[in-house]
Amino acid sequence: MKKYQLMAPGPTPVPSEVLLAMARPIIHHRAPEYDALFREVREALKRLVQTREDVLTPACTGTGAMEAAVSNTLSAGDRVIVVNAGAFAQRWLAICKAYGLNVVELEAPHGETVAAARIAEALRANPGVKAVLVQHSESSTGVLHDVRAYAQVTGGTEAILIVDAVSSLGIADLPMDAWGIDVIVSASQKGLMLPPGLSLLALSEKAWGAAKQSKLPKYYLDLAEERKYAQRNEARFTPAVSIMVGLREVLRMIEAEGLVEVFRRHDRLSRATRAGAEALGLTLFPKTTPSPALTAVQVPPGVDADRVVERFATSHNITIDGGRGPTKGKIFRIGHMGYVADFDVISALAALEQVLYELGQPVDFGAGLRAAQKIFSERS
Amino acid sequence: MKKYQLMAPGPTPVPSEVLLAMARPIIHHRAPEYDALFREVREALKRLVQTREDVLTPACTGTGAMEAAVSNTLSAGDRVIVVNAGAFAQRWLAICKAYGLNVVELEAPHGETVAAARIAEALRANPGVKAVLVQHSESSTGVLHDVRAYAQVTGGTEAILIVDAVSSLGIADLPMDAWGIDVIVSASQKGLMLPPGLSLLALSEKAWGAAKQSKLPKYYLDLAEERKYAQRNEARFTPAVSIMVGLREVLRMIEAEGLVEVFRRHDRLSRATRAGAEALGLTLFPKTTPSPALTAVQVPPGVDADRVVERFATSHNITIDGGRGPTKGKIFRIGHMGYVADFDVISALAALEQVLYELGQPVDFGAGLRAAQKIFSERS
Repeated sequence: MKKYQLMAPGPTPVPSEVLLAMARPIIHHRAPEYDALFREVREALKRLVQTREDVLTPACTGTGAMEAAVSNTLSAGDRVIVVNAGAFAQRWLAICKAYGLNVVELEAPHGETVAAARIAEALRANPGVKAVLVQHSESSTGVLHDVRAYAQVTGGTEAILIVDAVSSLGIADLPMDAWGIDVIVSASQKGLMLPPGLSLLALSEKAWGAAKQSKLPKYYLDLAEERKYAQRNEARFTPAVSIMVGLREVLRMIEAEGLVEVFRRHDRLSRATRAGAEALGLTLFPKTTPSPALTAVQVPPGVDADRVVERFATSHNITIDGGRGPTKGKIFRIGHMGYVADFDVISALAALEQVLYELGQPVDFGAGLRAAQKIFSERS
Repeated sequence: MKKYQLMAPGPTPVPSEVLLAMARPIIHHRAPEYDALFREVREALKRLVQTREDVLTPACTGTGAMEAAVSNTLSAGDRVIVVNAGAFAQRWLAICKAYGLNVVELEAPHGETVAAARIAEALRANPGVKAVLVQHSESSTGVLHDVRAYAQVTGGTEAILIVDAVSSLGIADLPMDAWGIDVIVSASQKGLMLPPGLSLLALSEKAWGAAKQSKLPKYYLDLAEERKYAQRNEARFTPAVSIMVGLREVLRMIEAEGLVEVFRRHDRLSRATRAGAEALGLTLFPKTTPSPALTAVQVPPGVDADRVVERFATSHNITIDGGRGPTKGKIFRIGHMGYVADFDVISALAALEQVLYELGQPVDFGAGLRAAQKIFSERS
């Protein structure tokens, strides 16, 4: 028997308590029971996103919410800046292209980031830019971009800062109001420990102002309409009821653990994973701040990273993920976000030691585990 | 103790077996287990929709799929015909407006339908109409529109027929290919007995041709892209995995019962509900073919239909629904679609007798039940 472990960079494991809560008989979204649930969830989401604004919960996955962030705040021909250093940034580019936006692309090699100063410079060089679109955690490369510094740059301009926080919400600190972020986009299946199918969107006052000017067509994901209903504690359309039921459970779990401790845990899990991989002689892929959501690791010369991913699955029943596009075959990615605890990382590192050995690499068994244990022993 | 019964016109009850299947640990959408699931579901959906075309399963609710049907096949300024005889038709109007379409509205009073001849006439009077948008089952009024006849009209023209089958798929016979329907839009939470959050879309060859001409912006719900991935048995974006797991279960249940028997059951449930209501002296709201998905009933003079709905909930723990807009307070609607059997209708009619009595109406106890029983005894 090999116990199954889902350690991909999303979807992530759903706690059994939450799965069972979602398995209760379906409730009607206009019944009093849903009313109480929606009210509780709406308030808790504001605390999670660290905002006074409404956090909307349309029934779609993260990409739908990314599109909504664009289609609700911009108009065809608008000039925008996209920070492009990975596969999810390319999704911003594709969405902007689909909507006829005029994109200034700030590129960095995968594994690196774009300094806030480059954004400031691009904003000066391109007057009239309406929005800057970025990832917080770029899960294709394992890099965390410094959205706090980006927000300091956009704060003084008319541009809104749109942040894809799909793999950072509930994982890395991202105080929307305190940092001055204008749009936060997230989804259910990463830090929120839920099945995919629900997205989260919050807009600042500045972003709602931009929304008033937006002329792009939208209906299902018309956020101003969505907000009108939410403020009356009503669902505009049939919501993803079962995931909303799960959301109440996970928000209670997160509040019981405490948001600060949740961030500390993810930081600890990621430091332990990185220490373990490095102790095994591997090189981390990020050349800059790594994301606490996942660890991207380069393979030694002569090893195909996709074989590592395959071995994790076939020999050890653990799902991790490989690289995409330019990093395919060169990196593997271990997710440690959401419902993940210290010893899940220990298991993943134990599997990594075995997999390297199976692939004919020299392995000092226990070296990765020892490095992780030292990190875990630091717990105060 | 009052056992809870969900008999609204959607969402509908989810079978326990399906809830528990969805409560199994989450699987990754790029793992072999999902691969097998997706393949099975894709094939079974073709049989359900009675089409050779791919049936796409984007993660959104029915309204998102309605929007996708428009944004993928039409362009701004296109002239379209909307058959408007209820609240869901008004959703077509709102979507068409959001996308700058030029709408010819064929109206009928709520409770009635629009004859196919009127569509033929409107097509002659308005050359160049690109699409006709209709509901199959208009669940705000309980009417079933004759989409078979509509398809005979559009078949000879360049217009595509777009059918909202949200409350008819798996409920009323709707053989897409045989009838020549061009776009079928549906969702998980009605006849498919699942939680809301997954939609279904199928396009005919003619509709895919229209899609090639469409210039409206879309990304998340870009159906041509979605189909490319589906044909490789891959998910384009993270799918609503847990609902897909449930979908496999319900498709197996539907195939075990047999699609023809599923339609017969819904027909029987609806005839029994109507017979029961009429035996209690109530008047049915539809003036034409009633939908087998739900029964809309007028209340006697002096009774507020919303009080009937309220009493169903508070006295009998049964969720039904009221009227919307022009029918608010005048009708109540009992859903009998999806995971509903004969004796669920008996319970609902028993509750109806009690509720009428509680509201001071004269009631011949058992008269509604007797009428329904006679229908059920007809089973061969």
